Amino acid sequence: MKDRLIFITNDDGFDSLGIKSVIDVAKEFGRVVVIAPETMQSGQSHAITMFSPLSLRCVSKSEGVEIYACNGTPVDCVKMAFDHVLLDQKVDLVISGINHGSNSAINVLYSGTMGAAIEGSFYGCPTIGFSLLDHDENADFTTSKHYCSEIITSVLGGDVDLPMCLNVNIPKGELETIKGVKVCRQCKGFWRERFVCRQDPRGQDYFWLTGEFFNEEPLAEDTDNWALYNNYVSVVPIKVDLTDYSKMSSLQNILHSEK
Amino acid sequence: MKDRLIFITNDDGFDSLGIKSVIDVAKEFGRVVVIAPETMQSGQSHAITMFSPLSLRCVSKSEGVEIYACNGTPVDCVKMAFDHVLLDQKVDLVISGINHGSNSAINVLYSGTMGAAIEGSFYGCPTIGFSLLDHDENADFTTSKHYCSEIITSVLGGDVDLPMCLNVNIPKGELETIKGVKVCRQCKGFWRERFVCRQDPRGQDYFWLTGEFFNEEPLAEDTDNWALYNNYVSVVPIKVDLTDYSKMSSLQNILHSEK
Repeated sequence: MKDRLIFITNDDGFDSLGIKSVIDVAKEFGRVVVIAPETMQSGQSHAITMFSPLSLRCVSKSEGVEIYACNGTPVDCVKMAFDHVLLDQKVDLVISGINHGSNSAINVLYSGTMGAAIEGSFYGCPTIGFSLLDHDENADFTTSKHYCSEIITSVLGGDVDLPMCLNVNIPKGELETIKGVKVCRQCKGFWRERFVCRQDPRGQDYFWLTGEFFNEEPLAEDTDNWALYNNYVSVVPIKVDLTDYSKMSSLQNILHSEK
Repeated sequence: MKDRLIFITNDDGFDSLGIKSVIDVAKEFGRVVVIAPETMQSGQSHAITMFSPLSLRCVSKSEGVEIYACNGTPVDCVKMAFDHVLLDQKVDLVISGINHGSNSAINVLYSGTMGAAIEGSFYGCPTIGFSLLDHDENADFTTSKHYCSEIITSVLGGDVDLPMCLNVNIPKGELETIKGVKVCRQCKGFWRERFVCRQDPRGQDYFWLTGEFFNEEPLAEDTDNWALYNNYVSVVPIKVDLTDYSKMSSLQNILHSEK
């Protein structure tokens, strides 16, 4: 079991409490290599760094755990791992997180944590993005660690059909308040922003992006947000084909296009 | 027809040739408001700016065309439009592009142009991302303008089932070489990076991200990459539910989860 190689990244930065928590869990399953952002990269989605160079710094090496910091995005960190640092090594599992804050519903699109998890799935191994519904930088990850361990055990021991990318969200609360794990679909919803306008000392306006999430559907029992609201850990299997097959035929009519 | 309001953004910046080309086309269909990035934002995906403030600058106002530059990402520009500048105005169409370079296949995930197009679709109007398969900053957009006009006409005149977000890619070449428009699915493929390593004057390594795209499947006739390779304009309808429904049942078994 200890022959396994587990790669870990996140979007909150290499020294966040969330990534330290999941490193603690993962090192029980194998050798751990971490490449994570130097600085906070929340909201970086699937962004890559094309117009400035990347740097990589060894933070620490101890028995079974190597930690590097990279000045790029979470997706850059994954590419740096598979196409440079771990080139030609077999990686058994990619973990992204544990994120400080929810990545359920449409948040999966904006999330740097989930961008990295999705990118990891392009390299032929199972990937899991973990998020705790608590933004506090000193959040309690005890319950999360329990479920990370349980889900990692299942994925490493299960008959996994690749590509496999999981979006796992964990409610805030004591272990005994959580009812279990539920496989869900992504809840429909969207954000609306309220820009907070301020003025700089020269009288120029500037704006802080701040928003509110709206559910777009009744909170159906098969959605991640229902599961989380009802104290289940939600697990959404993610795919990267964005084609809306249901619209292809009507679109051919609208565009008078070739079939 | 001139009562229509069309919002335009991109990821190459407010003064790129691609956005100027599509503004030329769009102003024939209605009033145009542009909010586009101050600087190149290629590869910014669905990223948002959470930890620094946004600025907005009026670049020009002429008959029927207002252009603003924003220091954020393409998705920030869309949010700035709908939740601030155009708040409570009915927008009839969102256009992102014309991108300098392809956004077919998996590029849709990394693309700032398509990130903005997807974000636009959350605001209840049809959205189209246009890309030309030519990275040259002085690329010839004549053929692209023809197809932009044709597709905008179809979408504005068609019976569109919202949400509607289209990923349109246009081959490089003279108008008469293009065979028509084809509705497609996203081709399967992935990027592998070759990091170019250099040293700074203090002897520290730094890395440029540079990669190569691999098709993951035979170039099937229903894919966007087949269409483009065969000189068709490809149109892929995009959806934002990333749930892989085909894996939900096997995942329940692996995780021994609640049904």
